[in-house]
Amino acid sequence: MKKFEIAAIPGDGIGKEVVPVSLHVLNTIEELHGGLKFDFKEFPWSCDYYLEHGKMMPEDGLETLKSFDAIILGAIGNPELVPDHVSLWGLLIKIRRELEQSINIRPAKFFKGLQSPLVNPKDFDLIVVRENSEGEYSEVGGRIHRGEDEVVIQNAVFTRKGTERAMRYAFELAKKRRGHVASATKSNGIIHSMPFWDEVFNDVRADYPDIQTASYHIDALAAFFVSRPQIFDVIVASNLFGDILTDVGGAIMGSIGIAPAANINLNGKYPSMFEPVHGSAPDIFGKGIANPIGQIWTAKMMLDHFGEIELGRKLLDVVEDATNDGFKTPDIGGKASTIEVGDEICRRLKRL
Amino acid sequence: MKKFEIAAIPGDGIGKEVVPVSLHVLNTIEELHGGLKFDFKEFPWSCDYYLEHGKMMPEDGLETLKSFDAIILGAIGNPELVPDHVSLWGLLIKIRRELEQSINIRPAKFFKGLQSPLVNPKDFDLIVVRENSEGEYSEVGGRIHRGEDEVVIQNAVFTRKGTERAMRYAFELAKKRRGHVASATKSNGIIHSMPFWDEVFNDVRADYPDIQTASYHIDALAAFFVSRPQIFDVIVASNLFGDILTDVGGAIMGSIGIAPAANINLNGKYPSMFEPVHGSAPDIFGKGIANPIGQIWTAKMMLDHFGEIELGRKLLDVVEDATNDGFKTPDIGGKASTIEVGDEICRRLKRL
Ligand SMILES: CC(C)[C@H](C(=O)O)[C@@H](O)C(=O)O
Ligand SMILES: CC(C)[C@H](C(=O)O)[C@@H](O)C(=O)O
Repeated sequence: MKKFEIAAIPGDGIGKEVVPVSLHVLNTIEELHGGLKFDFKEFPWSCDYYLEHGKMMPEDGLETLKSFDAIILGAIGNPELVPDHVSLWGLLIKIRRELEQSINIRPAKFFKGLQSPLVNPKDFDLIVVRENSEGEYSEVGGRIHRGEDEVVIQNAVFTRKGTERAMRYAFELAKKRRGHVASATKSNGIIHSMPFWDEVFNDVRADYPDIQTASYHIDALAAFFVSRPQIFDVIVASNLFGDILTDVGGAIMGSIGIAPAANINLNGKYPSMFEPVHGSAPDIFGKGIANPIGQIWTAKMMLDHFGEIELGRKLLDVVEDATNDGFKTPDIGGKASTIEVGDEICRRLKRL
Repeated sequence: MKKFEIAAIPGDGIGKEVVPVSLHVLNTIEELHGGLKFDFKEFPWSCDYYLEHGKMMPEDGLETLKSFDAIILGAIGNPELVPDHVSLWGLLIKIRRELEQSINIRPAKFFKGLQSPLVNPKDFDLIVVRENSEGEYSEVGGRIHRGEDEVVIQNAVFTRKGTERAMRYAFELAKKRRGHVASATKSNGIIHSMPFWDEVFNDVRADYPDIQTASYHIDALAAFFVSRPQIFDVIVASNLFGDILTDVGGAIMGSIGIAPAANINLNGKYPSMFEPVHGSAPDIFGKGIANPIGQIWTAKMMLDHFGEIELGRKLLDVVEDATNDGFKTPDIGGKASTIEVGDEICRRLKRL
């Protein structure tokens, strides 16, 4: 019996609607499988929590999380009440950083039953390896002067270690896939960090003679996601570039609501965190219509992470089939509620 | 008689093929119009020039350019021979900065006769106002240590003046269009510069009560360019965000090869520069198949800049009609050469 202790943080907005559905799916899998056991513990850390306690999570929140095998996160943010940079840096980015979840992996592929906005979405299947610990997202920098003389400095910080780590992960992943790595750069415009990024990429690829490579400036790369996503297998990108590309990846699948993600701790010291790409979507919260697929696909990535690759594959097949058969929320052209989609997926899992 | 002295810098690669075509078109317009006179002077500044002289342009290059009424630029870059950050910062970005071309405006719209990769490209019509003088593109920063300890700092620098200038331009432009400005931010992830960006946006929009506004995180905004570009009118973005968005804008039109741009000097001290969004495309250079529409549409933006709005509108209509009638280069599904497309457009102009 494999037993996993899992911390669940639904967070804000639709996170509170889709996380329970993903737990329902995981419970169903547990029942059917026999050899797997999930123990979930829920934490109410969120913007609501902030309004009550003046912080996004308790002082010992990170310590608490460290004892778990994995973390499931819904979404964080309620900008009407708490400025985003406060809520995100107080919880989401804090966990990514302090638990050394140094990369964020985010697949996107042609998904059966979805109406892609592209004329030709056929058969694209890519995965973005996003550097998740440094780069453009930093607390280094600040402001000077006020009013019309104000100057703001934002430092992007790239280390050899962080950059190389993300790239090596991408090359290892490509070995298990179609053997191609594309690097997202901007060395023609961003003068210190991106030429460095290219140098590290050149060094790393020398160790992988069997992997094909290409470099694209981020502007062209984003455009290719739209004009011919089929050319990509694995893409390695900085924190910001990965962020932008993966939303476009969600869009070309047909909905950002289905895009999954995993924040991976590579040194084995702390748990990894599984959170979908979408945000808290306050505009649709409470209506019961949030698309749970992103969160469920994210749970599939957790199964992969636990070594349950076959089980993960089955789960995603079921989700795709259910979608293709019309069990869909309104954002992707269906009439089902969040819970109905989850129930249908559980029903189908039981039939396997 | 209105007379304009225009510096033409074809630059590298397909710049050398498409700039002559745009001059041909402008000469044709001059002949037909009667009241307009263009004096072109060509400069060979490029990567070839660099290989011969060790710099991208002569010491007094900027001084020389200052005396012109406008600059037409093709494309810069030949990374096989000269690293991009050398060629671009030695010419393109240098001109943008030193001639105080503080904003870069880049329209994208549904274009007749093009096969957009989108299922529903109907009627989108947007324009990105890109801050063009500061932000993420900076020479501030550097490296420390080598090998596995290397750390690279890239500073993004935002000033109140630069930020506000771009935003005010966007609001003024929106007044003449459909009255809507969207701001591209990332204040949830980028902790110093983007909350500042939001503050300035809030201040500026207070002066424009009749303009509707919205703010989107850049990741979501890029995704909306794909899923529903019709929601946008004017978008104001930082240097990097504008760069990425406008390539996606080109992609959704059906080809980056048709996307135009203008680097505008707002204080009237120096000439503005008209260069398309696409690059030098060394892979197709010399084949005579480069798409000249980006460069021609850019010439139309120059006509607008000279106050010849009606003439500009006619030119773009002619280009669109010719495209719709099948006079197209291979990248957009046609069989015509660069020169043939230019000739057809001139022929139709003469028929007006
Ligand atoms: C070549 C490069 C430096 C440039 C930029 O990023 O500004 C280009 O991509 C553009 O969009 O004009
Ligand atoms: C909420 C925000 C800080 C976050 C990010 O940019 O990392 C989100 O967009 C994501 O992609 O996970």
